[in-house]
Amino acid sequence: MTSDQHAPADQRRDRITISIDAMGGDRGPSAVVAGMARSMSKNPDIGFIVHGPQETLEPLIAKRRGLADICEIRDAKDTVRMDEKPAQVLRRSKTTSMWSALTSVKKREADVCVSCGNTGALMMLSVVRLRKLSGVDRPAIAVLWPSRSEQGYNIMLDAGADIRADEHDLVKYALMGVSYARNGLGIEHPRVGLLNVGTEEHKGRPELRLAYELIEELTVSADFRFVGFVEGGDLPRDTCDVIVTDGFSGNVALKTGEGTASLIGERLREAFRYSPLSRLASVLAYTSLQRLSKKIDPRRVNGGVFLGLNGTVVKSHGSADATGVSAAIKLAYQLTQSNFSEKLAARVASAPALDQDGETGDGSE
Amino acid sequence: MTSDQHAPADQRRDRITISIDAMGGDRGPSAVVAGMARSMSKNPDIGFIVHGPQETLEPLIAKRRGLADICEIRDAKDTVRMDEKPAQVLRRSKTTSMWSALTSVKKREADVCVSCGNTGALMMLSVVRLRKLSGVDRPAIAVLWPSRSEQGYNIMLDAGADIRADEHDLVKYALMGVSYARNGLGIEHPRVGLLNVGTEEHKGRPELRLAYELIEELTVSADFRFVGFVEGGDLPRDTCDVIVTDGFSGNVALKTGEGTASLIGERLREAFRYSPLSRLASVLAYTSLQRLSKKIDPRRVNGGVFLGLNGTVVKSHGSADATGVSAAIKLAYQLTQSNFSEKLAARVASAPALDQDGETGDGSE
Repeated sequence: MTSDQHAPADQRRDRITISIDAMGGDRGPSAVVAGMARSMSKNPDIGFIVHGPQETLEPLIAKRRGLADICEIRDAKDTVRMDEKPAQVLRRSKTTSMWSALTSVKKREADVCVSCGNTGALMMLSVVRLRKLSGVDRPAIAVLWPSRSEQGYNIMLDAGADIRADEHDLVKYALMGVSYARNGLGIEHPRVGLLNVGTEEHKGRPELRLAYELIEELTVSADFRFVGFVEGGDLPRDTCDVIVTDGFSGNVALKTGEGTASLIGERLREAFRYSPLSRLASVLAYTSLQRLSKKIDPRRVNGGVFLGLNGTVVKSHGSADATGVSAAIKLAYQLTQSNFSEKLAARVASAPALDQDGETGDGSE
Repeated sequence: MTSDQHAPADQRRDRITISIDAMGGDRGPSAVVAGMARSMSKNPDIGFIVHGPQETLEPLIAKRRGLADICEIRDAKDTVRMDEKPAQVLRRSKTTSMWSALTSVKKREADVCVSCGNTGALMMLSVVRLRKLSGVDRPAIAVLWPSRSEQGYNIMLDAGADIRADEHDLVKYALMGVSYARNGLGIEHPRVGLLNVGTEEHKGRPELRLAYELIEELTVSADFRFVGFVEGGDLPRDTCDVIVTDGFSGNVALKTGEGTASLIGERLREAFRYSPLSRLASVLAYTSLQRLSKKIDPRRVNGGVFLGLNGTVVKSHGSADATGVSAAIKLAYQLTQSNFSEKLAARVASAPALDQDGETGDGSE
């Protein structure tokens, strides 16, 4: 372990330190450690603080050559289970690996936190530990959506941090999404769309009509374009780069998209197994189908990013394997490299005071 | 033309008369007439009253052998355009083919109306012409969703008739969905799920928690099962047969599902064009892929059904070709054959008085 490993993260920009909650995923800590090893081989300047039971983690890490050298283990006896309700978690949270992993970001020992655990609990503990960013009332989860856009992905938020959002929240989501698009995907002038059931301005709920006007006003002074209302069909299209919606609709869209893709994939495999001819065809088409599957593989865009907190948290899919965990770590790494947290905070702070009753980010929920 | 063609629809159950709005679809009246011809060849006891400009329709119908014999044309000069807002339409609605087509159902000359036109306008004019069913405050659009269920499809409602729904509306959607599942898909004991962002009972918006309790109470005396909260991923699964949600979330889900399927289909075609080997593979797999595409072809499940009115209206997709129109007509035919309208009205009427302030279906909007 290098000595500067113990210096605060904000004092050593030569190494990016990622705080990993090794517990709580469906595949256990071995998948997480395998993902860490994979990321290490691709990024020589990465470092980890990994949280979970010492006696479990130590042997798993020792098995991967070189990993122990860039890893610090923080012993945490308890795990937040997938089926636990956030309220249950809160009572006993301080002994969990999730709490410990967030604490490393709070203390600035690490730049960013990655967890495969229970989403609701992770969001709740993130708000408690990191507090809401000044000016943000409702933090959001941003996800990457495979699309026809040049960069191959669109950003959708909120994917389910909160079940509702008013017009001021939606404006903040737009600003945070723009910051993510620029720093995470390298899009200079992101196009923003507001999810609705029709593309005509007169349609939809009142908060959507109000958010439409507020976002349109902002484009005058900002470095993004507003394409107006978009529909569910625009999520995978090249209409816009950032799709803004409340967490209920966003979560329904996300789960529906995943379910549809999975049904089609299953039917496709059935079709190829159907006859000797089709089985031969699947052999011939193997390389092309692999390329396709790589393009739409959800594991490769694994990682919902929690936006609107004092610090970045990447939520990896609960069922992520080594490839998935490694993709989440890569995303965390990229965001840190571009100083995402600082830039996002600056963007939200620079927004004109839209709401008179705006929260000051005291994080008391 | 047979003489009983002019008897009211409810006096001649030997022939099923379908009122067709031939105008307003993206592909014009020729696609609609082609779909009618296709349906005629499959159902000898079908009859049509078709609405649109006489001089346009007559030659199109004359070209199809035998079609003129089972068709009555009702001259209607005007067409509701796809981009027209419902309020614009209302002012000049009485001269449109859409109004005329609904009038045939109102006067009981036809059993059911089929239109490829503007959804918002069609729902508005349907409420004006047919009036809401007693006990229904918000009519709904029910769509079929390709799924892993035994019958190959699940029913989702509301797909976008209204942008909101309270707990009483959601209960009515459940009852109407059950009636549709039984009469349209032949499911004896449909399983009903309520769309939410989590499957835990404590989560979600207040109206969802209230609807949960009300629907659960109903199952005691009714002939359906309630599986509780479901998520977007359950739309294509075998979790339940009827998925109940508000029209905003339903529309987002529908458009997202269509968009995702279309992106994957496009990527798949690209993959097969990529190399000589993959092109050969696509030839070998042709039959299997055709079978797959038939299974998930949205044209074959074309038709959103408007529920909660005094009469049945089938909304065909605006871009429907002959196959799509024919599928919508087939659905309209099946529903009429099973006396769907009467059975649905009876089911809604038999529901215990859930809401003290329930509308009496005066349809005055």
